[in-house]
Amino acid sequence: MNSIGLYGLGVMGQSLVLNIASKGYKIAVCNRSKDVVKEFKDNRVKDLPISCYEDIKEFVDSLKKPRMILIMVQAGKAVDAVIEQFKPYLDEKDILVDCGNSYYKDTIRRVEECKKDGICFFGAGVSGGEMGALYGPSIMPSGDKEAYEHLKPILNAISAKAEDGAACCTYIGDSGSGHYVKMVHNGIEYGDIQIICEAYDIMSRVLKMPIDEIQKVFDKWNKGKLSSYLIDITSKILTVKDEKTNKYLVEVILDKAGQKGTGKWTSMEGLDLGVGIPTIAESVFARCLSAIKDKRLKAAALYDEEVIMHVDKDSLLKALENAVYCAKIISYAQGFALLKEASDSYNWDLNYGEIAMIWRNGCIIRAAFLQDIKKAYDEEDIVDNLIMTKHFSAILKENIAALRQVTIAAIGNGVYVPCLSSALEYYDGYRSPRLPANLLQAQRDFFGAHTYERLDEKGSFHTKWEEIEY
Amino acid sequence: MNSIGLYGLGVMGQSLVLNIASKGYKIAVCNRSKDVVKEFKDNRVKDLPISCYEDIKEFVDSLKKPRMILIMVQAGKAVDAVIEQFKPYLDEKDILVDCGNSYYKDTIRRVEECKKDGICFFGAGVSGGEMGALYGPSIMPSGDKEAYEHLKPILNAISAKAEDGAACCTYIGDSGSGHYVKMVHNGIEYGDIQIICEAYDIMSRVLKMPIDEIQKVFDKWNKGKLSSYLIDITSKILTVKDEKTNKYLVEVILDKAGQKGTGKWTSMEGLDLGVGIPTIAESVFARCLSAIKDKRLKAAALYDEEVIMHVDKDSLLKALENAVYCAKIISYAQGFALLKEASDSYNWDLNYGEIAMIWRNGCIIRAAFLQDIKKAYDEEDIVDNLIMTKHFSAILKENIAALRQVTIAAIGNGVYVPCLSSALEYYDGYRSPRLPANLLQAQRDFFGAHTYERLDEKGSFHTKWEEIEY
Repeated sequence: MNSIGLYGLGVMGQSLVLNIASKGYKIAVCNRSKDVVKEFKDNRVKDLPISCYEDIKEFVDSLKKPRMILIMVQAGKAVDAVIEQFKPYLDEKDILVDCGNSYYKDTIRRVEECKKDGICFFGAGVSGGEMGALYGPSIMPSGDKEAYEHLKPILNAISAKAEDGAACCTYIGDSGSGHYVKMVHNGIEYGDIQIICEAYDIMSRVLKMPIDEIQKVFDKWNKGKLSSYLIDITSKILTVKDEKTNKYLVEVILDKAGQKGTGKWTSMEGLDLGVGIPTIAESVFARCLSAIKDKRLKAAALYDEEVIMHVDKDSLLKALENAVYCAKIISYAQGFALLKEASDSYNWDLNYGEIAMIWRNGCIIRAAFLQDIKKAYDEEDIVDNLIMTKHFSAILKENIAALRQVTIAAIGNGVYVPCLSSALEYYDGYRSPRLPANLLQAQRDFFGAHTYERLDEKGSFHTKWEEIEY
Repeated sequence: MNSIGLYGLGVMGQSLVLNIASKGYKIAVCNRSKDVVKEFKDNRVKDLPISCYEDIKEFVDSLKKPRMILIMVQAGKAVDAVIEQFKPYLDEKDILVDCGNSYYKDTIRRVEECKKDGICFFGAGVSGGEMGALYGPSIMPSGDKEAYEHLKPILNAISAKAEDGAACCTYIGDSGSGHYVKMVHNGIEYGDIQIICEAYDIMSRVLKMPIDEIQKVFDKWNKGKLSSYLIDITSKILTVKDEKTNKYLVEVILDKAGQKGTGKWTSMEGLDLGVGIPTIAESVFARCLSAIKDKRLKAAALYDEEVIMHVDKDSLLKALENAVYCAKIISYAQGFALLKEASDSYNWDLNYGEIAMIWRNGCIIRAAFLQDIKKAYDEEDIVDNLIMTKHFSAILKENIAALRQVTIAAIGNGVYVPCLSSALEYYDGYRSPRLPANLLQAQRDFFGAHTYERLDEKGSFHTKWEEIEY
């Protein structure tokens, strides 16, 4: 009998299967299109303990009970279709594990629906792309605790390992929380990527540095405090030449970015829960703006004014590393603030330090930096916001001037830096004892009788504005 | 028999009733709490043709057929409850008109549900606050066309009139579109308000101007290109003294802003449809940040560094008016770009010029400025984005340097200006022929095999990054 099954042989699914089999687990696989099963069997199974099935029933019957079936299909309707397909063949206590990027509210709904049929639906966020899935992803399982105990040995075995050997996999919380945490991971990833792109653009368009020189900067950064997977691959990407044109490959890649929903969902959640996550939201809007390249070209022709503010290259380049570091800290602070609000709102009791720990390896935002976040959470009883912790506030105090310098230089030269600037804005707003929302409340009371509070007295107040002579 | 009925005697409902009755229409009113009906009858009905009912059936029976019942209750579950309450007493073709700030998807659902019972559910966005409702709001009706023909005379009669006498009411489109347009109106209103607050804060915290001096600036602005209801009430608010302390009232109002959902929904829609509306989203996040005042006070103590960049007061003050004007144009451009995408996505065939026209009076964002938007739409066949029109691009070209100067001055002095800065960022991003999304796409292809496009060739490309030696 097979220990586990996996349905959905896309890029991620195939990699996950090979990972599981390489750890010695007997695994059954199946896929909607039979051709894909055949191709996988012919080309990738080799000597591994993988059994390929074209028939759902045979696939299910080959599994040890309680059956554990990982589902790795596109988020959305496909997941519901797969559940329906399996239902007739499953027994009570069998476990369906959704490893895709499902929307957390869908997961919560599916858990409830499956429960009616005695089936356990379980959500697990999986991050790391193709390579992560193959060699060890970061895994965020959530849902029924008994089901988790069955899954735990395999999930731990296939997950990435941090430098200290710890598995990058931990039980997150109740149904939906794993996909939620994965969603926020992706939102943070969107921010990280956009911040890197803005740094690249400043070097390219403000400092007019050639690609090879920019590459050296990222290579250097990857040996310092910004060391991370994303900086590492950036430095690698910038070495690659295009065979056809002999230009650097990035020079011939079209600047239109796609998105797959999780960054957008994260931003929408921030809005819905009333948590300020502007830097993450701006990274999503930046992709929207990149996508309308035809409109940008028209606008570029219309608004062709060159904006120039003189900058000192050495000084700006030195500041840039610290600016990126600050923006990164502020962006993560927003993401973790969202996790805190979600945990409170949905009663998930999330362990933020543990979440940081399982992001240390396997996933796209992996970096030594995550260890610092864990430390910040460990050192303090209550953390409202990471920027208020001893560790990170010391860094921000020392380096925020660099973020200010870089943002002004970019704006002064007409270069689009929505994430760097919104990170700085967030910092300046968060540290303002007095914001002009007093005027805002007066306006709302004026036109909508919404009432306001006072600084010196408790209660709600309303001014009869229409009775005043102006 | 009464010509029309209204259910829900809150602030807005009462004002709307008095407005309708003052136009000579016989109107029946009813409310969940009977005390409110009684109080309204005793204090506000006077000689007006208003009949008050405590009983739903009597209320319904008093209406001419097809019955038209305006519902003015809190958005959400209350609307569904009211519908259920009325259903037993309604006949086919009777019309329920939701005048509240309902979420447009709820309206679409309710229309479908009511259709099953032969009832016509109709959505109408109503803007203008208490005074607007009383003296003439801007009205955005949408849904069944036959129902609209019944409602049209009354809606036109009670709506605000623009300077040229035109009613600020026009049929918007299919079910849901009226509430959608009202939602975007509110999103734009959030942006307008926050931009004004940032201008106030710059005068207050960068230029250290006393309230009376700031008041004079808004008063002057209200006579120029920024002339609008919101600037007008700002100038009025800043004259008002607090009786208790003899300080200016704004000085004693707590700087914690509330929100009622529509700004948040607008921002979420922008994200969901992939339309960049960062300035509107930042105005929502600014309210979120204002709300956590206790946390801000702690942060202010921790991050107490004073940031000072020298500015010339006269020059900055002159630039400020133009900066606000640019930010306002860019914010409206985002709102109208969202309307366009929604119209395309939901097949509403919105008439943007007409929408601008009915916002000229009655609603919170009313201003002569809206006439310019209509003109911009009239002058051109296709408008992708308002910043690309002849009229507004000429203004932006002349004044964008002012927005840049002001944004840099605010950032250089540590003052939070998320809307001004994001408007400038949007402009700089929109006019960038090349954005660093090429690097972003390379990264996504590296870690997730997402593929990329090329500048010089059609198709999707993937690089085998793992086979390259770095």
